[in-house]
Amino acid sequence: MQSPQKLTQLTETHRPTLDQALEAIRTRAYWSPHPEHPKAYGESAAADGLAAFEALKNTRFDLSDQPGTDGWVGGSASEGGEVSPYGPELGVSYPHADVEVLLPAMRAGMGAWRDAGPEARAVVCLEILARISARTHEFAHAVMHTSGQAFMMALQAGGPHAQDRGLEAVAYAYAEQTRVPEAADWSKPQGKRDPLNLSKSFVAVPRGISLLVGCNTFPTWNGYPGLFASLATGNPVLVKPHPRAVLPLAMTVKAAREVLAEAGFDPNLVALAAERPDEGIAKSLALRPEIKIIDYTGSTSFGDWLEAHARQAQVYTEKAGVNTVVVDSTDDYKGMLSNLAFSLSLYSGQMCTTPQNLLIPRDGITTDAGAKSYEEVVGDLAKSVGGLLGDDARANALLGALVNPDVKARLDAAAGLGEVALPSREVTHPDFPDATVRTPVIVKLDGAKPDAEAAYMSECFGPVSFAVAVDSTTAALDLLRRTVREKGAMTVGAYTTSPEVERAIEEVCLEESAQLSLNLTGGVYVNQTAAFSDFHGSGGNPAANAALCDGAFVSNRFRTVEVRRQA
Amino acid sequence: MQSPQKLTQLTETHRPTLDQALEAIRTRAYWSPHPEHPKAYGESAAADGLAAFEALKNTRFDLSDQPGTDGWVGGSASEGGEVSPYGPELGVSYPHADVEVLLPAMRAGMGAWRDAGPEARAVVCLEILARISARTHEFAHAVMHTSGQAFMMALQAGGPHAQDRGLEAVAYAYAEQTRVPEAADWSKPQGKRDPLNLSKSFVAVPRGISLLVGCNTFPTWNGYPGLFASLATGNPVLVKPHPRAVLPLAMTVKAAREVLAEAGFDPNLVALAAERPDEGIAKSLALRPEIKIIDYTGSTSFGDWLEAHARQAQVYTEKAGVNTVVVDSTDDYKGMLSNLAFSLSLYSGQMCTTPQNLLIPRDGITTDAGAKSYEEVVGDLAKSVGGLLGDDARANALLGALVNPDVKARLDAAAGLGEVALPSREVTHPDFPDATVRTPVIVKLDGAKPDAEAAYMSECFGPVSFAVAVDSTTAALDLLRRTVREKGAMTVGAYTTSPEVERAIEEVCLEESAQLSLNLTGGVYVNQTAAFSDFHGSGGNPAANAALCDGAFVSNRFRTVEVRRQA
Repeated sequence: MQSPQKLTQLTETHRPTLDQALEAIRTRAYWSPHPEHPKAYGESAAADGLAAFEALKNTRFDLSDQPGTDGWVGGSASEGGEVSPYGPELGVSYPHADVEVLLPAMRAGMGAWRDAGPEARAVVCLEILARISARTHEFAHAVMHTSGQAFMMALQAGGPHAQDRGLEAVAYAYAEQTRVPEAADWSKPQGKRDPLNLSKSFVAVPRGISLLVGCNTFPTWNGYPGLFASLATGNPVLVKPHPRAVLPLAMTVKAAREVLAEAGFDPNLVALAAERPDEGIAKSLALRPEIKIIDYTGSTSFGDWLEAHARQAQVYTEKAGVNTVVVDSTDDYKGMLSNLAFSLSLYSGQMCTTPQNLLIPRDGITTDAGAKSYEEVVGDLAKSVGGLLGDDARANALLGALVNPDVKARLDAAAGLGEVALPSREVTHPDFPDATVRTPVIVKLDGAKPDAEAAYMSECFGPVSFAVAVDSTTAALDLLRRTVREKGAMTVGAYTTSPEVERAIEEVCLEESAQLSLNLTGGVYVNQTAAFSDFHGSGGNPAANAALCDGAFVSNRFRTVEVRRQA
Repeated sequence: MQSPQKLTQLTETHRPTLDQALEAIRTRAYWSPHPEHPKAYGESAAADGLAAFEALKNTRFDLSDQPGTDGWVGGSASEGGEVSPYGPELGVSYPHADVEVLLPAMRAGMGAWRDAGPEARAVVCLEILARISARTHEFAHAVMHTSGQAFMMALQAGGPHAQDRGLEAVAYAYAEQTRVPEAADWSKPQGKRDPLNLSKSFVAVPRGISLLVGCNTFPTWNGYPGLFASLATGNPVLVKPHPRAVLPLAMTVKAAREVLAEAGFDPNLVALAAERPDEGIAKSLALRPEIKIIDYTGSTSFGDWLEAHARQAQVYTEKAGVNTVVVDSTDDYKGMLSNLAFSLSLYSGQMCTTPQNLLIPRDGITTDAGAKSYEEVVGDLAKSVGGLLGDDARANALLGALVNPDVKARLDAAAGLGEVALPSREVTHPDFPDATVRTPVIVKLDGAKPDAEAAYMSECFGPVSFAVAVDSTTAALDLLRRTVREKGAMTVGAYTTSPEVERAIEEVCLEESAQLSLNLTGGVYVNQTAAFSDFHGSGGNPAANAALCDGAFVSNRFRTVEVRRQA
């Protein structure tokens, strides 16, 4: 049974945060309730978090109250369980669900969850996020040892930034559901006769079960928007993690189930669907009639498949893209180089937002440090990356580990695609000797040569960038347009001191629906977006069919049912 | 060139109306700026409107400035032109477009239309609606003589009600685009270091060309929401009318082009695509890469085809459904009967919202006039319909004409589906002897008999209703649920005096996402919805994938592109 006292308490606790989030998505000024600094979580948080993570290793993950468990999956590496990109096996086993039992159980609590209304759902979601936030250090280790992110990035991107994106989705969901009042009196004048009177009620109703298909690199950051958008709009959420990144989402599911139960809702509104190796459960789940919403981050091929085949569901996808930086001119050459070097290095380029193609006029560019030839720009960028990552400790802190062997294979192959301006370097991790840590490679390509096009016109996910020589900035813009239109882009960057060029780049991005960062030379990078202010993706080019987070991301996750009565 | 003075003037004129519309969609109280009474349009409006309509007959419709005209279509009946369901040929010819010329021309003005911003687009749309509103009588004749609606209905539903729905879409589009500010300053604290500062701009960008595939019965009412939602969000709109209902939308296109040109925008942002008989242009247009949005009202088969195949576009469909009224009990038996009789009769049941299946317990119902058996309820309803339509003048004013021979064929066949409780009657129209005017048939079916199910479980569009005898109200609710889930429903009605039954019906409608009208016994009918207050469809059952009008109807017609710069 629902607990009114608990809900009142949650509303008192979280309503101010919700209101601030609603204000932030309106003004899009900087705001976050989730601290980035590891020390903000308390004296013992670091040690406690590590201990909690270590205690999970080599255990059966406790979701004993989830219905339909018909076995266990994961476990040791030989059983197909998670192995950290840093080397250690996690050894965690997860319950495997009989969906014929689990899906009906997930639907059972829908009515009460719907009837609770948008505010109750929002504050329950905020309590889930608060519980997760309190365990940010523990989540950081779980994200680090599934994604390969370096610890600090795992803590920030996997912790507060992911929680921000979840909260942002809750705020959008709440705003969308409350655009229509709960009730309205309607009185239509009829001249001299009595008016026609109706009393109307409006209820936000869920679509059905929402399926989250998680990804390997950002299990929480990419997972939370869809999870919380669906839950806050009344839908149960079935979480199907990437087989190599189960733990962060299993912990999330468990936290959600605990909060739901404490507030008197059915914990089965959130459930885990872990899978056996090669079971490919996402494909069969995606076509189940009970599944009405799907959130997916991953390959273009499976994203396209979902969009084409899961016709009974609303499908939100983030797929592959080819991100471009146009280098035309700059009044801060050094800043540009260091900013780009950081962007290429962060998490070994394993972000969907990392620049891949740097388009540089073959006749060079003008800068505050004088004219620079194409060769000079590429050489200086290579030096900048080399300098940034010259120290192994710093390199490890920035790069993290390669998430899987496919990334390493692509990196190894990249050197054969053109002239290598900066070779990749193997970095040893002091604590994790089995980690595969590599600095990015920069490969020179001639944009005018057809055989180079195969390389720069496809996504080469990982620490690989192409310094593409183009005939002119105009040619760069043509290539930018074609790349976004045909391949999609999560980000576009550009450096120019020319107002005309700036306008032309903006026009391409407006026409092709790509998010643009101009002249970043300081501590903000093209591959980072801030919840409440920046949109992640646009939903208007092939890289993604949705943006995080806008009205469209939430408005179709529920429907409004009206009941009107003669008054 | 854009005319700043004209835009300022339009803003001064229409901003107050826009603000009132924004307030109305938030409160959902009664509001409309478009008068329903024919006399509200001025002394000479009736005569002027008729004359203007008559002057259009047997002419080439003037869209001489639309590019790519490669011939003329329509014309006389033998050429495939429009023939009024009341008999007369319209004889209007329309330009046929070479889409290879027209589509690029429609894209040419997109940039300026996008740059004008949401408010300018909204007030231009409101000016288009104002021009149409001023010609409501002329539009009434055009709607009457294409849809077969009676004059008064054609005036109201085809005029002010359609204009209301268009304005509602503009208001939603404006609200959605302005949820994000045009610009934001973002400053992220960095402890003791300087904050990170960015200046950001946000632009609503269009998807591409929007295709409106019009319908025969409500060319303006069902067409305006998609047309204005797309135009107001920056998209050019190509209007492909139903071949039997071209004129009202051609007039709309012409009005839109005039206003766009006067305000300094490219008139080709709105264009007409009339077709040769059997050309089937909707199918080929729908798959063109330039078409990014499609609005469609019509058959389930083509709606489903669009959803499955026009994958490059956002597709909004209103398809067939089976509307149900559950009759459990009433405290106003007479009111119920007369309300239902009107609902079944209006426009000969040719509304997507007309009730088809009346579910009545075979053991009868309780009423304020005593217990009534199933036979009595059906008999009394038949009498009520008979009484309402007994007078030919009144019958003609309510029924209008059958829109096409298919409807008549279904009506004729219906009498063979079961025992006829009320036979259809042929009504002669005093002014239009060739009009096919028929009163509705009511056929009795036994809900427990499998052979009856084929009849009541499919849409029988037209003046056909089934009085379905069910075992109990519980059985009625089971059948209601199954009907909505499998066949969809634009409307559900119910009569009950029992709070328990009321809650149970509401629960079915909430779970199956159907719009419910309870105990209507006065002057509001289940088949009518009012813009700004009532949702038309829910978008959550098979009858339609969108509701008129909510956030989801507009939020995916544009994308938001952010440009961020280091500040």
